[in-house]
Amino acid sequence: MGTFTPSNRQYEQHLREAFARQTIMTTIGARLAGVAPGNVEIELDFREDLTQHHGYLHAGVVTTILDSACGFAAFTLMPPESGVLTVEYKVNFVAPARGAKFLASGRVVRPGRTLTVCNGEVSAIDGEETRLVALMQATMFRLQGP
Amino acid sequence: MGTFTPSNRQYEQHLREAFARQTIMTTIGARLAGVAPGNVEIELDFREDLTQHHGYLHAGVVTTILDSACGFAAFTLMPPESGVLTVEYKVNFVAPARGAKFLASGRVVRPGRTLTVCNGEVSAIDGEETRLVALMQATMFRLQGP
Amino acid sequence: MGTFTPSNRQYEQHLREAFARQTIMTTIGARLAGVAPGNVEIELDFREDLTQHHGYLHAGVVTTILDSACGFAAFTLMPPESGVLTVEYKVNFVAPARGAKFLASGRVVRPGRTLTVCNGEVSAIDGEETRLVALMQATMFRLQGP
Amino acid sequence: MGTFTPSNRQYEQHLREAFARQTIMTTIGARLAGVAPGNVEIELDFREDLTQHHGYLHAGVVTTILDSACGFAAFTLMPPESGVLTVEYKVNFVAPARGAKFLASGRVVRPGRTLTVCNGEVSAIDGEETRLVALMQATMFRLQGP
Repeated sequence: MGTFTPSNRQYEQHLREAFARQTIMTTIGARLAGVAPGNVEIELDFREDLTQHHGYLHAGVVTTILDSACGFAAFTLMPPESGVLTVEYKVNFVAPARGAKFLASGRVVRPGRTLTVCNGEVSAIDGEETRLVALMQATMFRLQGP
Repeated sequence: MGTFTPSNRQYEQHLREAFARQTIMTTIGARLAGVAPGNVEIELDFREDLTQHHGYLHAGVVTTILDSACGFAAFTLMPPESGVLTVEYKVNFVAPARGAKFLASGRVVRPGRTLTVCNGEVSAIDGEETRLVALMQATMFRLQGP
Repeated sequence: MGTFTPSNRQYEQHLREAFARQTIMTTIGARLAGVAPGNVEIELDFREDLTQHHGYLHAGVVTTILDSACGFAAFTLMPPESGVLTVEYKVNFVAPARGAKFLASGRVVRPGRTLTVCNGEVSAIDGEETRLVALMQATMFRLQGP
Repeated sequence: MGTFTPSNRQYEQHLREAFARQTIMTTIGARLAGVAPGNVEIELDFREDLTQHHGYLHAGVVTTILDSACGFAAFTLMPPESGVLTVEYKVNFVAPARGAKFLASGRVVRPGRTLTVCNGEVSAIDGEETRLVALMQATMFRLQGP
């Protein structure tokens, strides 16, 4: 984190434009909370209409912000004119997703010409208290061309 | 599929009640399309407000219906007074999630007293054409008690 | 299974040569049990020197034959002059790996120009009895060139 | 790492006994390189008889030492009279496994009464040079009783 040098000097602008096109982010109320080379954070407030049957945030919603955080983290290190697609991911849920707010952070573990491997985590935040909720290990694919 | 005998005779009613409590299902417009012992299907229409940056259904939304399909498939084989939580899952995305409609199906591979392993898949449906979009392998946890 | 048409007419010979170069297969006593387009089976006898602390086959050994079965299944559908590398896999262990013999089978779910997605499973075999031991979901990478 | 307090005061002795019973470790020449609460390291020298078809260490062998490192890391935090089984894991291979020596390290991310989540990694070591080869995210199960 912080040890990567992006090859796309406008990576942050391109990332913010791509984030704005992810309509699901608006639908669930997620927003970009941090952007750095190889590292992206996304924030989400708890909402009653995003839950599973026990009233916690649904695992799929937790995964949605994790996937975007990891995918965009990979994107920060890609050359200009690249697109990013998710190849696959694995998520472990280590505590119920309850809390006032959730922070997903994705970071690049190993960037590659075609495939980039990322780790991500989501924490629940209640005032001062922060609790790990989920862990992701993901593979992202670089699409070439505009 | 079809070879499992549920121990909870009211499993379908309990499942439909739990599904109705998953507010995210209403938010994204997902609905139960099939319920059988060890097998659950969930349907979702494409919507412009559920997409990623290329206009396809976001991977997290694909995962949301897959997770519920697998979790509820596990639930059909649990004793009465059980709850179900997702331990972890892994999803491979094998084609862009574009199409008019999406069908997630989850099925139990191996039920267990505490842990149940499921496989799931999502297909995109356009008229007569059906295309595999994503594959899940998941572990579900049985909570005991009401 | 059986619905794939290999583009490399000598795929079986190339696969058997590559298998023979996997020295770990000889070390643990694994052998090719079946080869078809998009489908490969590997057999392993139980041995006392391949176990974990309870006397079952070690998860890593189960994974070793699963990985080769899935990797070679992907290889059967690749053009001539291709090599195959494992990008990633996920394995669920659903029963203790005890038995006289183990059969790993790998099959292609979706072949691709660069990435191929496979499913695999290992069963333990004791005379007439067959029991599912492990499930794999894997991504394989095609190396171009000789 | 270092922030966990083991409830089994003899955890290191029990771990070393269990490691000694893992016959596969002797077969491949793996040895314990470090034991601390929530953290275990295993070392392996490259050997010609542990390779895949390009002459690198086979992914299954990399996984074997990763699985034991993660499983034993979980074990260090379990109460006396516990056993440990692997529920599932996912491994990403980020570079070819070539090198003189390999070091697997497993660490507990979140210990639990029944399930413990671990992360692991394997590095290849050539003299002064260290290179990341593989990443694991794993779920371990605690067996109760002697």
